[in-house]
Amino acid sequence: MTTKKTIAIDMDGVLANNMQHYLDYHFNETGERISAADIQGLPEISFLPDPNAVRRHLQQPGFFRTLPINPDAQEVVRDLNERFHVFIVSAAMEFPWSLNEKYEWLAEHFPFLNWLQFVFCGDKSIIKADYLIDDHVKNLQTFEGEPLIFSCFHNINESGYERMADWKAVAQYFSGK
Amino acid sequence: MTTKKTIAIDMDGVLANNMQHYLDYHFNETGERISAADIQGLPEISFLPDPNAVRRHLQQPGFFRTLPINPDAQEVVRDLNERFHVFIVSAAMEFPWSLNEKYEWLAEHFPFLNWLQFVFCGDKSIIKADYLIDDHVKNLQTFEGEPLIFSCFHNINESGYERMADWKAVAQYFSGK
Repeated sequence: MTTKKTIAIDMDGVLANNMQHYLDYHFNETGERISAADIQGLPEISFLPDPNAVRRHLQQPGFFRTLPINPDAQEVVRDLNERFHVFIVSAAMEFPWSLNEKYEWLAEHFPFLNWLQFVFCGDKSIIKADYLIDDHVKNLQTFEGEPLIFSCFHNINESGYERMADWKAVAQYFSGK
Repeated sequence: MTTKKTIAIDMDGVLANNMQHYLDYHFNETGERISAADIQGLPEISFLPDPNAVRRHLQQPGFFRTLPINPDAQEVVRDLNERFHVFIVSAAMEFPWSLNEKYEWLAEHFPFLNWLQFVFCGDKSIIKADYLIDDHVKNLQTFEGEPLIFSCFHNINESGYERMADWKAVAQYFSGK
């Protein structure tokens, strides 16, 4: 038995920059540019002027396949993968049309991971790991290991969890572990 | 917090009768009927005369979507779902083309479950539950809860796990819990 600890890492909002993608889809649809500064603290699913727009964008074929990657995510996950058991854990079942897109996105951008490390689920309370990096409190609050909140526009006012401002902060947090 | 216990249930070979499907695909391809009695104790991936046939059948579009259901699986899971937290946990990542087929199969045959209860993964060591019903020792041996082996042709010689001969046996096992 190995003594490596296990890190579960969320996809949307953590590996992927969903916020930028929402804003780009909004610009393509309306011609209006909204800045990240304008939306801090707003709820993810209804922060656009049209409260149905985020869900509509999520349902576009290709949305999940073309998500931009958060800065430094690839490099830091590659390093963590050397020293920890890394699992990518996504609540993909909420968007079943996304299953293949998410798999292909992971295979393209994280080729050093393999399918044994991917988990697509709904309720993350079934996940057992030492650490969970996630942007949603609903996932962190049922987690029995060490929950780490990854900063996203929608969660900046949440407290009670150790906060990772970005992937450089994640690297720093795990550097001594 | 609820006090319901959690049961993780495998799909292939447990909810679904993969053996019958392999034998039907073999008959369709070769005209040869092989009986269940002839294959007891043989390895799942190479039990057919052509050792590559199982993998070839698994890769056929529609294989996972058209799997027959094991007897009594629907009725027993419906009952368990009233008294336990039920999760369906499938190592679907090994066959990424199966993701949508498996989702649709579950939605059709187990409409009383919802997407929050589905988990598609690779390595099941990340699963936390009180019970795991699975036909593969590799999944049972890393499980920290109560592992239950579900009888399949390929596992009849495995010992060391409490054995569920069929879904009626599962109902019996959980009747007093």
